[in-house]
Amino acid sequence: MSEKPEEGITVKKENFSEWFSQVVFKTKLIDIRYGLRGFPVHREWGVKILRRIYEMFEEELEKTGHEPVLFPSAIPSRFMEREKEHVEGFTPEVFWVTRAGNEDLAEPFVLRPTSETAFYSMYSLWIRSWRDLPFKRYQSRITVFRYESQTRPYLRGREFPFFETHCAFRTREEALEQIRSDMEIMKKVCSRLSVPFLVLKRPEWDKFPGAEDTYAAECVMPDGKVSQIGTTHDLGQKFSRAFDVKFREEDGTERYAWLTCFGPGVGRLAAAVVGIHGDDTGLVLPSCVAPYQCVIVPIYFSGRETEVLEYSREVKKRLEEAGIRVFLDDSEEKTPGYKFNHWEMMGVPLRIEIGPREAEQRTATLVRRVDRKKSVTTFDDLTKSVIEKLGENDSLIRERSERYHSVREVGDFETLERIAETGGFFKAPFCSVGSEGEACARELQERTALKVRGTVEGEERAEGNCIICGKPAGVKVYLAKAY
Amino acid sequence: MSEKPEEGITVKKENFSEWFSQVVFKTKLIDIRYGLRGFPVHREWGVKILRRIYEMFEEELEKTGHEPVLFPSAIPSRFMEREKEHVEGFTPEVFWVTRAGNEDLAEPFVLRPTSETAFYSMYSLWIRSWRDLPFKRYQSRITVFRYESQTRPYLRGREFPFFETHCAFRTREEALEQIRSDMEIMKKVCSRLSVPFLVLKRPEWDKFPGAEDTYAAECVMPDGKVSQIGTTHDLGQKFSRAFDVKFREEDGTERYAWLTCFGPGVGRLAAAVVGIHGDDTGLVLPSCVAPYQCVIVPIYFSGRETEVLEYSREVKKRLEEAGIRVFLDDSEEKTPGYKFNHWEMMGVPLRIEIGPREAEQRTATLVRRVDRKKSVTTFDDLTKSVIEKLGENDSLIRERSERYHSVREVGDFETLERIAETGGFFKAPFCSVGSEGEACARELQERTALKVRGTVEGEERAEGNCIICGKPAGVKVYLAKAY
Repeated sequence: MSEKPEEGITVKKENFSEWFSQVVFKTKLIDIRYGLRGFPVHREWGVKILRRIYEMFEEELEKTGHEPVLFPSAIPSRFMEREKEHVEGFTPEVFWVTRAGNEDLAEPFVLRPTSETAFYSMYSLWIRSWRDLPFKRYQSRITVFRYESQTRPYLRGREFPFFETHCAFRTREEALEQIRSDMEIMKKVCSRLSVPFLVLKRPEWDKFPGAEDTYAAECVMPDGKVSQIGTTHDLGQKFSRAFDVKFREEDGTERYAWLTCFGPGVGRLAAAVVGIHGDDTGLVLPSCVAPYQCVIVPIYFSGRETEVLEYSREVKKRLEEAGIRVFLDDSEEKTPGYKFNHWEMMGVPLRIEIGPREAEQRTATLVRRVDRKKSVTTFDDLTKSVIEKLGENDSLIRERSERYHSVREVGDFETLERIAETGGFFKAPFCSVGSEGEACARELQERTALKVRGTVEGEERAEGNCIICGKPAGVKVYLAKAY
Repeated sequence: MSEKPEEGITVKKENFSEWFSQVVFKTKLIDIRYGLRGFPVHREWGVKILRRIYEMFEEELEKTGHEPVLFPSAIPSRFMEREKEHVEGFTPEVFWVTRAGNEDLAEPFVLRPTSETAFYSMYSLWIRSWRDLPFKRYQSRITVFRYESQTRPYLRGREFPFFETHCAFRTREEALEQIRSDMEIMKKVCSRLSVPFLVLKRPEWDKFPGAEDTYAAECVMPDGKVSQIGTTHDLGQKFSRAFDVKFREEDGTERYAWLTCFGPGVGRLAAAVVGIHGDDTGLVLPSCVAPYQCVIVPIYFSGRETEVLEYSREVKKRLEEAGIRVFLDDSEEKTPGYKFNHWEMMGVPLRIEIGPREAEQRTATLVRRVDRKKSVTTFDDLTKSVIEKLGENDSLIRERSERYHSVREVGDFETLERIAETGGFFKAPFCSVGSEGEACARELQERTALKVRGTVEGEERAEGNCIICGKPAGVKVYLAKAY
């Protein structure tokens, strides 16, 4: 694959998978040519985008009382073993560190696939009294390790970017309230990123290992498959019993804390931004994640270079003073046309063209990324106009973001089978999301590749019959193909 | 050990090691009670301090043209083996991942002890032409893994916070210029942190495995031992030959790139801030790294609570608007005295006391952390006064920061032996820092525990005779006990 923009990108709607791989590579998000499969290198543009996504969650979580900590990547196997479902769920996918230097380790350890056991081993020391609660912590900008068989940039890796919160509460009500708050935070961040999603309560057989309940945020990707972009788990008292996370009540009695954890999928969100907003030219970035919000391209004509360059610098300075992330592409080797193509491919929301006429009249030509629509502004109005055009570009992104998101209601299996290939979510009557529904879910997946993704709170009651077994429907479930 | 401030901290000058452990634990920097030795948990206050140190380096490096990337934690063993000195140097301290799920890995990998081999495996793909050079990249907020036998919070760990740059140049001169620039960045950051240090060129036998030359920034800790707080390596063309990092010159010839790498020790710098500035009350933080730069303590008197609290909030708002990091400790369970002690222990540079009198007169009492000196300001002058007092507190920290830093010149072994215990750097005539001097260095260390830390550029020529073998001195070397 070439990194040269002039060689173009596959048409997105013809082969989304190939388009995605090309965009991720050509725009310097991820390079998969590192010597270990499933361990990609995050490149310059990708790191800057991930960093902004991380910052959004850090900001929201600190606002809601979460404090930062950083735990080791190493988890002793005796921690993993304390919670039965957890160890069973994760054993097939953990990496083992068994040797160091030239010796075998007395106690091998695993690389964290997630950090519940690490956190709660310390919570049993840190939490003593009801006065310590709620106890809300998070760790950010870390990676976790899972031995996956299939790997794809951002979507599935053996080491991937992670973010997690771990909270302890005095009552179950407070814990459930935290789960709502976590999903509110998903909503805020996804709204800024223009990524539409549903919150689904996972069926009994698809919960996080060790959780009472799992709630997942899920968006539809352009190929019609859904992608889990975040989860929050109601851990009840399972882990607090396993790790002895107790607190003393006001009256002196000892109680187990109620635990929740939340993991927004930062890499999955980057994938959603790339996949949902991108077009045949390349990336299309909302201004909140764009490493540069605008790029200035000076258009030199012989004899007027100095004038154009000096004015371009003035424009840059004015925008920087207003807190706008701006890059002046003043390299002389490349043509303006090349630069236009390059920065469009990189998804920069706004291009500012400055030629001799603009320099002379103290104006600037602004070009929106989404539709390439041009407008002219004066230097006096520059900041205002740029902010306005960035807003317009963001609105266009938002309007188009709904085109892949769909929920279609079906009442019977035949209809579902006919339209299953078209992708998105389907909503159908189903016998049960308790363990007694698992056989139907398995049959559904075998026949259509659709999975039962879960239920939406408040929609549990259903009319009709289960689309598989025909028994009276206990619930209405959401179905989709999934990454 | 107790987390309660009222139980006090060991006297620093009587037992620095014990004092350091207590401060690190009680102020919630690091908790070593995690289930694996050498894998500490970074707690709330510590993460916030580390984050500020990371940010300072990120800012300086981006200003000098470095772009961020993120490499895997995993390094295939075949990468490690490509540079002979490198693999020999690191083999005794790498952790091996040999299993995943229930199977043995076909190719076991190591957890990065540092990332030269990972970076340069990709540089051979990324760098093609002289136009790609200089090529400057960094990765930040990562950890590395080393199988150390002795471990201490911040100073030596099996997993510890890391920061690294990797740069490729067209000429050796540019590479050497980068090394000077790296040390300039150390100087800028250390100046903000008030950590005095020396830059030493390491002797032949103490270079980074695979480097032509190693330059280390080193500060004196309160126990007289020196701590390496950063290194920059002139890698010459060794790694570019091993990893085939070549570029095409303007005239079409292929050349190997000149490589350098720089690793500021973020954890070591945190240790220096804790150790050098702290006192018998606890931490003393320069305002640039303090998570809170000031803390407001309302002093309630019966009937005046609302008035005091409302005015405290007004003070907080005013300071926040000025970009000052301020915390209002409005908890009602704890006494003002308890809060004073607590925030002094945490090292907050400035305390703002607000009682009924302050609320009534619209003033505030400011108390500097270092010397507890009080002053009163009006609300109108609040921001100005706070900035001024923060500056004064920083100046006091700076003045006191030199007290452990010393370089004493000695001409003979007997004098050195007599004063070796007093700590700091010693400067002495020495036969050679080439491999022929290694035997003398070993003898010196056996007799005094002092190590040859290196030479200062421009001071290589020396009078007198080697303090060990008595031959004419080739160089003047710096000696010290070291962490």
